[in-house]
Amino acid sequence: MSRTVVSSQSREVIIGFDQPFCIIGERINPTGRKKLAAEMAAGDYSTVERDALAQVQAGASMLDVNAGIPLADEPAILADTIKLVQSLVDVPLSIDSSIVEALESGLSVYQGKPLINSVTGEEERLEVVLPLVKKYGAAVVAISNDETGISEDPDVRFAVAKKIVERAMDHGIPREDVVVDPLVMPIGAMRTAGQQAFSIIRRLREDLGVNTTCGASNISFGLPNRHALNAAFLSMAACSGMTSAIMNPLHSEEMAGVMAADVLLGTDRDCRAWIRKFREPAAEGSAEATAREARGERRRRRAAG
Amino acid sequence: MSRTVVSSQSREVIIGFDQPFCIIGERINPTGRKKLAAEMAAGDYSTVERDALAQVQAGASMLDVNAGIPLADEPAILADTIKLVQSLVDVPLSIDSSIVEALESGLSVYQGKPLINSVTGEEERLEVVLPLVKKYGAAVVAISNDETGISEDPDVRFAVAKKIVERAMDHGIPREDVVVDPLVMPIGAMRTAGQQAFSIIRRLREDLGVNTTCGASNISFGLPNRHALNAAFLSMAACSGMTSAIMNPLHSEEMAGVMAADVLLGTDRDCRAWIRKFREPAAEGSAEATAREARGERRRRRAAG
Repeated sequence: MSRTVVSSQSREVIIGFDQPFCIIGERINPTGRKKLAAEMAAGDYSTVERDALAQVQAGASMLDVNAGIPLADEPAILADTIKLVQSLVDVPLSIDSSIVEALESGLSVYQGKPLINSVTGEEERLEVVLPLVKKYGAAVVAISNDETGISEDPDVRFAVAKKIVERAMDHGIPREDVVVDPLVMPIGAMRTAGQQAFSIIRRLREDLGVNTTCGASNISFGLPNRHALNAAFLSMAACSGMTSAIMNPLHSEEMAGVMAADVLLGTDRDCRAWIRKFREPAAEGSAEATAREARGERRRRRAAG
Repeated sequence: MSRTVVSSQSREVIIGFDQPFCIIGERINPTGRKKLAAEMAAGDYSTVERDALAQVQAGASMLDVNAGIPLADEPAILADTIKLVQSLVDVPLSIDSSIVEALESGLSVYQGKPLINSVTGEEERLEVVLPLVKKYGAAVVAISNDETGISEDPDVRFAVAKKIVERAMDHGIPREDVVVDPLVMPIGAMRTAGQQAFSIIRRLREDLGVNTTCGASNISFGLPNRHALNAAFLSMAACSGMTSAIMNPLHSEEMAGVMAADVLLGTDRDCRAWIRKFREPAAEGSAEATAREARGERRRRRAAG
């Protein structure tokens, strides 16, 4: 029973087979968002603020934070963004960069135990990222590709994941601190992408005993009605053993897919989250209702704690 | 690879692991529909007609036909309903009754190879229904309860299903003509209902090699936002190996859940059905568009045949 524990300064989140699905909000990422990239490069974090608050209100368990802006000082911007986000919300963060200096800069200001996003199976990456994971006592997303690229053979992707987990353990990082991303391909381009994902997720859980995550929306690339397809994919992946996803919590169909999976897999105790969310049909989609809900939830949490 | 072949006078439908999910329309059933019951008892089949056409237009692969009306002449009404429905639509039917005389009456007028809904593991039922299945060369839904009722233990439900399949084979009915309904409990009443269903469906497929079906909406009984929960359940059940369900094809969320599962499991070749259905956002939910769609599909089928 693998339990990946991550934390902020004041809150712990567990990714695990017996836990509600861990929703990692993907919005704070300038990739493909020109306006956000320009703002962040100019030191304007107003969109970041709004994205942080809105995603947590919508039910994100964690937030991914990425500051990959061409020609900008990514290490400095990532650190600033993390400090800002941690001052606004109390969910743990996933520190997302392909640049090691940026990861280290983000880690140096982070309060709590973050998720590092990510390491691949490439030798050179393994030997620079894993020491950072160990040094900061973090957890890490392991992406199952290596020097040869992304294999279309799920056995190869499984083998790469296994190699990363074993190498992490060599570095003194426990197995439960590695969350594997098996790499989901667009189903419109590869007919077996869904079956492959479900089967590799099941193996990662049953044979390797690790938690899993993925960028969920990739599956529907190029197809119409993407939200419904993403929602079904999330439910089916959860049913196959996936325990988290990097996704947009502002999309209600995807959120319903994840929340329904929690109900159906028994991790939403007494269907409480489902009933709270859906009991008043009028409340759906209304901003005021969402805010009310968030406030009520905070009250309840305080009362429970 | 179990393939259950059913047919009408002019059309064959295959239920199978490599086939699109088989949607069995549940609407032609007076249980809990007082107005429909009164109409059918009085020989007025106008609602039946509308339900038959609408369900097939909405994408039903088969239709369930039930005429269980207290104090009415069920054998005669069921036969009349079947004749009428077969004159209107060309999908195969599931002949649904708990009264053996009604089943036989329906079978005697049916054109093609129907599904009989259903037999249980009760000795007395097995010995009257299975001979009918054999006599008419039909397929049959096997419900996994017996004299002791519905067990909460999935091992017992699996054992009952196994007994029915074996008894059917004793009667000369091939394994692939038995479609098992593992009995889905309301998740609001039993926290493990989802996990139990997924695990028993997987065993029925892997260990017993049979197709499966269920009354899908039972899972969400008593909870809010039932459509989203049913949709996720259908996707997850399909991911676990379920190959058909008795459901309402007029509910768009459930249909999207099933169609997405077909895409993600690779049984919707080149995502054709998905793209056809969702490519024009304006078409969604419009009756004219649905009719246009149905006409277009008929043209295409004719062209292909």
